[in-house]
Amino acid sequence: MIDPVFLDTPLYRCEALEPALGCAVSIKLETANPVRSFKARGTEVVASQLAEHGSRAVVCASAGNLGQALAWSGRGRGLDVTVVASRFAPAAKLDRIRALDARVELVDGDFDLARERAAAVARHDGIRLVEDSLDLETCEGAATIGLELVDATPSFDSEPSCDAVLIALGGGALATGVGHVVKALAPDVEVICVQPLGAPAMTLSWRGRRVVTTDSTNTIADGVAGRRPIAAVLADLLLVADDAVLVQEASIVAGMRMLLDHAGLVVEPSAALGIAAILEDRDRFAGRHVVTIVCGSNVDADDYRRRVGAAPTHRS
Amino acid sequence: MIDPVFLDTPLYRCEALEPALGCAVSIKLETANPVRSFKARGTEVVASQLAEHGSRAVVCASAGNLGQALAWSGRGRGLDVTVVASRFAPAAKLDRIRALDARVELVDGDFDLARERAAAVARHDGIRLVEDSLDLETCEGAATIGLELVDATPSFDSEPSCDAVLIALGGGALATGVGHVVKALAPDVEVICVQPLGAPAMTLSWRGRRVVTTDSTNTIADGVAGRRPIAAVLADLLLVADDAVLVQEASIVAGMRMLLDHAGLVVEPSAALGIAAILEDRDRFAGRHVVTIVCGSNVDADDYRRRVGAAPTHRS
Repeated sequence: MIDPVFLDTPLYRCEALEPALGCAVSIKLETANPVRSFKARGTEVVASQLAEHGSRAVVCASAGNLGQALAWSGRGRGLDVTVVASRFAPAAKLDRIRALDARVELVDGDFDLARERAAAVARHDGIRLVEDSLDLETCEGAATIGLELVDATPSFDSEPSCDAVLIALGGGALATGVGHVVKALAPDVEVICVQPLGAPAMTLSWRGRRVVTTDSTNTIADGVAGRRPIAAVLADLLLVADDAVLVQEASIVAGMRMLLDHAGLVVEPSAALGIAAILEDRDRFAGRHVVTIVCGSNVDADDYRRRVGAAPTHRS
Repeated sequence: MIDPVFLDTPLYRCEALEPALGCAVSIKLETANPVRSFKARGTEVVASQLAEHGSRAVVCASAGNLGQALAWSGRGRGLDVTVVASRFAPAAKLDRIRALDARVELVDGDFDLARERAAAVARHDGIRLVEDSLDLETCEGAATIGLELVDATPSFDSEPSCDAVLIALGGGALATGVGHVVKALAPDVEVICVQPLGAPAMTLSWRGRRVVTTDSTNTIADGVAGRRPIAAVLADLLLVADDAVLVQEASIVAGMRMLLDHAGLVVEPSAALGIAAILEDRDRFAGRHVVTIVCGSNVDADDYRRRVGAAPTHRS
């Protein structure tokens, strides 16, 4: 059901990153596709099923990447796509959603308010609501990354063999999808979720083993900034995550810079969470082989330059 | 013979580039691998054969990318690798070659002087000289990109179907390798080689149907800056190239910026030659579907920031 353009993405050791990080690092790159994030793996499943059942329309709330992916998947199958987003979502993401012929509805609030509004649209119009992380298709799509990781000879079998996967944690689709596969097929590989200190709700929930909400979020990692974890997703996460860690904003920016300078990769903040986690706890990863999923590269060009491009960093 | 990490690279439409270019554009991305260029496709073939025949050492001249690739391929097979390069080659490329355990010998001159020196080293040490573009393995390695392009349903069959491939032209391995496959298996697809005006020797040779050398080169596209085309390579190029065009430095920089801003891709100057060619001749490509091979991303971080990262560009 998933267009092959989103599958079998690059997975490779990035030795140029390693002196500064003190461990072997492999990158699973989810940005070299038409929507520049992993989200289309899930929306392809959703849109295929909708088209097969004769549906004509679909709506989702999105921080930007899911909306872009659903717009792409829906357009190719003749679906009318509505994306509800925060008016604070990156303009670049909203522009791309519109360019893919989807209708964008903005709410004057954050992602969790957009979720409420999307649900209302779905009820009013009688159309399918795609709920990221709650709807299994979104997790199953992400899980195909896990299948590719486990199948990959170079990373999982090479010396040192891979022994940890770092996964950006937001709503939980990526973490539960990939985590489920890794724990089922390669249980010795540690599944570590990484979230910003400024948007810690799911991590706090995982630690407390119950849903913990926060009043606000404060992070540049727009793709993972939720306040209200979904109970069913938390239940899955408790089954598959070995750890959930929180990282500072400065570490996220440092991770973005390292990926630019030493890997030649433009990444959005949530895609740098794994590198940020290594930077904040080098001892934990010393000498190990870690895979980090670079989950998206949808940045606003000017924002990106301001944050990452302006001042040259010194070589390590 | 080629490690799978270098094969089946991403090929995808990049619609965000299209409004500014006036045509459909697909990217064949050769940067998401351990050496950040396509060159390892060829060095894997060379190094496999050497290892199979019990060789212990190999030498090449390189503008940087071939050396890095040969170092990677040789290291994994227990070969001693020597890379002769110009002392003006980008420091980042030379650093990566050394980090891969190869010996780097610098000459006080350009790439063509490095070629002479590498030949002398090979004669003196009695070891294999790898001559980029002349040695068929280097072209056959590049040709696997052509096989992947022709096999790819999305780009070659989708509407509008692909009808031109833009290929960076330097020594000619990429152009003759990919061109040979495309002309054999998809002859209607136009094979267009692109070279900087500041390093036009092979293009002038192609146009004149005889080897034309130049006294110097003056381009930021270090990966394709040669003065002395190889006659045998020119002969192959004459069989497979439909056109060879020259582009200005400003267009190369503009192409690098567009790839950063609209595709989220860091590319070295030679990898932006295809976009530069479209920018300089929009009428030629209007409404067509073009594949451009993004052949490398080995940039010096500070150079890259100076050239591409400093001043925000306006959105188109």
